[in-house]
Amino acid sequence: MAESDVAREPGRGHHPLAARAAGREDPVMRERRAAIAELGDAVRDLVEQVSATEVPADILRQAAAQAREAAAALSPRTRTRAELPSADDLLGGYRMYNPVIGVGSGLAAPLLVELTGTGAVGRCTLGLAFEGPPSFAHGGVSAMLLDQLLGHAISAAGHPGMTVHLEISYRAPVPLQTPLLLTAAMTELAGRRATARGTIATEADPGTALVEASGIFVGLRPEQAARLFGGVRPDATDPQAAHD
Amino acid sequence: MAESDVAREPGRGHHPLAARAAGREDPVMRERRAAIAELGDAVRDLVEQVSATEVPADILRQAAAQAREAAAALSPRTRTRAELPSADDLLGGYRMYNPVIGVGSGLAAPLLVELTGTGAVGRCTLGLAFEGPPSFAHGGVSAMLLDQLLGHAISAAGHPGMTVHLEISYRAPVPLQTPLLLTAAMTELAGRRATARGTIATEADPGTALVEASGIFVGLRPEQAARLFGGVRPDATDPQAAHD
Repeated sequence: MAESDVAREPGRGHHPLAARAAGREDPVMRERRAAIAELGDAVRDLVEQVSATEVPADILRQAAAQAREAAAALSPRTRTRAELPSADDLLGGYRMYNPVIGVGSGLAAPLLVELTGTGAVGRCTLGLAFEGPPSFAHGGVSAMLLDQLLGHAISAAGHPGMTVHLEISYRAPVPLQTPLLLTAAMTELAGRRATARGTIATEADPGTALVEASGIFVGLRPEQAARLFGGVRPDATDPQAAHD
Repeated sequence: MAESDVAREPGRGHHPLAARAAGREDPVMRERRAAIAELGDAVRDLVEQVSATEVPADILRQAAAQAREAAAALSPRTRTRAELPSADDLLGGYRMYNPVIGVGSGLAAPLLVELTGTGAVGRCTLGLAFEGPPSFAHGGVSAMLLDQLLGHAISAAGHPGMTVHLEISYRAPVPLQTPLLLTAAMTELAGRRATARGTIATEADPGTALVEASGIFVGLRPEQAARLFGGVRPDATDPQAAHD
């Protein structure tokens, strides 16, 4: 599979090892990931309709009952926070439920990320569910999109890390229901400390930055990673892995 | 109605005029807001189950069909981004669908905000849907929570405004499924420019800041407000208002 195909798969991130891991996906996992993406799509649309609807209260209550039914069908078998989703593959770059880019997440726009030679580009359109000031995106949503994209930019440069500092300048409000274009690139590297900068603009006027961000990311030392994530089991459904 | 009751109502924000506006709510609107909160609760639980579930792919697809049914029931009558929700009341402090605090939002934790004499306190518990690094909250989620709470703090101090700059320092990861305590207060005022600071900690260890934020907010001049929001109609269901 070509790397460009890997990048277009649902839920696929951009870890440097993604291409190498692509061969691991079996047909059962491919079907599971497609079903996760279908459910994510449906729930994202529901989240949007919930914020947009003006139907009468009795219909709202009926829809609530339907949503509870769907949730009940999903609840017999769930992971804990100490378990990774079985459809995830950190080395392979699959994070199905990431709240910004995850095709399985009900919270994600989702932001579609592409890596370029010099950084990362993100595209999304925010619905009414993301509204802060009337008709514009919540400022926190812009921060969330940029934190994610800056992370892709430093990972693409070969220096993945966790955010230690994030600065956001809001130049103009970000319109809802408008195709957005985000860009980010690593601008500085000092030891394990990488700085990235990025912007949000509209696709129609890509030269005008509505929001600017600068983030500092620090790569984890092995002992830090062990302390933070040592308790996380790689696969919620593999009993052997659960006891490693 | 006492101001303390107003603060506990679903979807109720903390606008200085909130207490004055409380008398406006009629029984039909009260019932509509209760139905909106019920639907919000149901959809938030669905969003969480979607990120946590390990049921087989065929059940995922059935749940997707149920979610699509619920969304279809809501879609016959929706507002556009130029219309406020009919259940909102900006002066009364009702923002039912705010993506951080809105009881009607499928995206909100929700963050429960209380005003204190000196600022704002927020409480929430983040589920698996908010996961960034395994078992911890996405850094962007922390930024979103703090942007919202800082805004409450400056509003409470009598200086509401829009975020122009936000700085977040990540000291330690924020655990999922753990009661969180956020605090914020206005620390500086220079003309229309208000600065607020805030933190995220756990309820169990409120003295240890996991995340720190500083935000600068600027009050809109009337002509800016008119330019940004002049096209927004006050009520999506009032045909007279729609033609104002």
